[in-house]
Amino acid sequence: MFDVFERYISAKAILTDQDLCLIRSLSVERKVAKREFVLREGEIARYIFFITRGMLRLLRTDDKGNEYILRFATENNWLSDRESYITGNPSNAYIDAIEDSQVLVWDKQDFHFLLKEIPALKQLMKELVGRSQIANQNRVFTTISGSAEEKYFRFIEKYPDTFNRVPLHMIASYIGVSRETLSRIRRHSVNK
Amino acid sequence: MFDVFERYISAKAILTDQDLCLIRSLSVERKVAKREFVLREGEIARYIFFITRGMLRLLRTDDKGNEYILRFATENNWLSDRESYITGNPSNAYIDAIEDSQVLVWDKQDFHFLLKEIPALKQLMKELVGRSQIANQNRVFTTISGSAEEKYFRFIEKYPDTFNRVPLHMIASYIGVSRETLSRIRRHSVNK
Repeated sequence: MFDVFERYISAKAILTDQDLCLIRSLSVERKVAKREFVLREGEIARYIFFITRGMLRLLRTDDKGNEYILRFATENNWLSDRESYITGNPSNAYIDAIEDSQVLVWDKQDFHFLLKEIPALKQLMKELVGRSQIANQNRVFTTISGSAEEKYFRFIEKYPDTFNRVPLHMIASYIGVSRETLSRIRRHSVNK
Repeated sequence: MFDVFERYISAKAILTDQDLCLIRSLSVERKVAKREFVLREGEIARYIFFITRGMLRLLRTDDKGNEYILRFATENNWLSDRESYITGNPSNAYIDAIEDSQVLVWDKQDFHFLLKEIPALKQLMKELVGRSQIANQNRVFTTISGSAEEKYFRFIEKYPDTFNRVPLHMIASYIGVSRETLSRIRRHSVNK
């Protein structure tokens, strides 16, 4: 499981064998079954996850229990509930697996230690934070602009792999369009 | 103008007089008239702004020329187009003033120098990046969940000051609801 991470990190940052060894020594390998939760609302996000196989999602629910997906995270991606992870407050989100998955897990304090010890890792995480800011800004733009149909086709264009791996109702709850509307769009596009 | 910034920064970080002097020496005070642009699509975002008076907005347009507001930034807030600022690529956004405003401006390279020289400033900016991640995640959730009416009332609750200062059509283009829908919601709520 760690070899997936090793390939990922070696392509992104220049690390010594000693760095890799330290990162590995503080990581825990974990299998997460489909539908299993690794974070629930009300818990404090004390861990950072790196997905080596499968797919996890970050989701929130509203007062009526409707689910909204904030992120899909596939292989070679990091995931945590940033709000709870940063503030130490109880999370208002959930993280669960959409597919049988494998993840590497670091405790927040251990990860903090790694960032202090390994400048190249710190630099990489800083770059990823910058990229997530950009992605979030684009996500906001995509969500407030365009019709439901445009949102759906933009999703397919941007995330063809995810599109093929998740059920339609999850795409609906990611782009903020009702299932009914999305089913209608799909029927129309098939008929065209 | 700098005294506004000095009060802000002194409440957030422990800086020496020398730090403040250095920050000031690299800042430029600028007045921005209502409707004046400080960043246009296609330009590279080379500056970071701190608003000492008034209000600026970050906006993007779609292919049809419709405007979408990504951020309102009032007094005591920082603003830049993060994507262009970080990547150095031409911006796909605009920044203009909604009210006659006053801002402090730092060149990206100068600001980078300040972050290197003043650890307390670097720490503060890191915290602000964390907070902006959280705010963005919440913005995404707010945007994909709830009805148009809920989005409108959530905006009023969360940003009462901004609500009182900007025209309705700008709120519509921030929350991602059409003007017509928002006008209808407003008429209904007045009649209640």
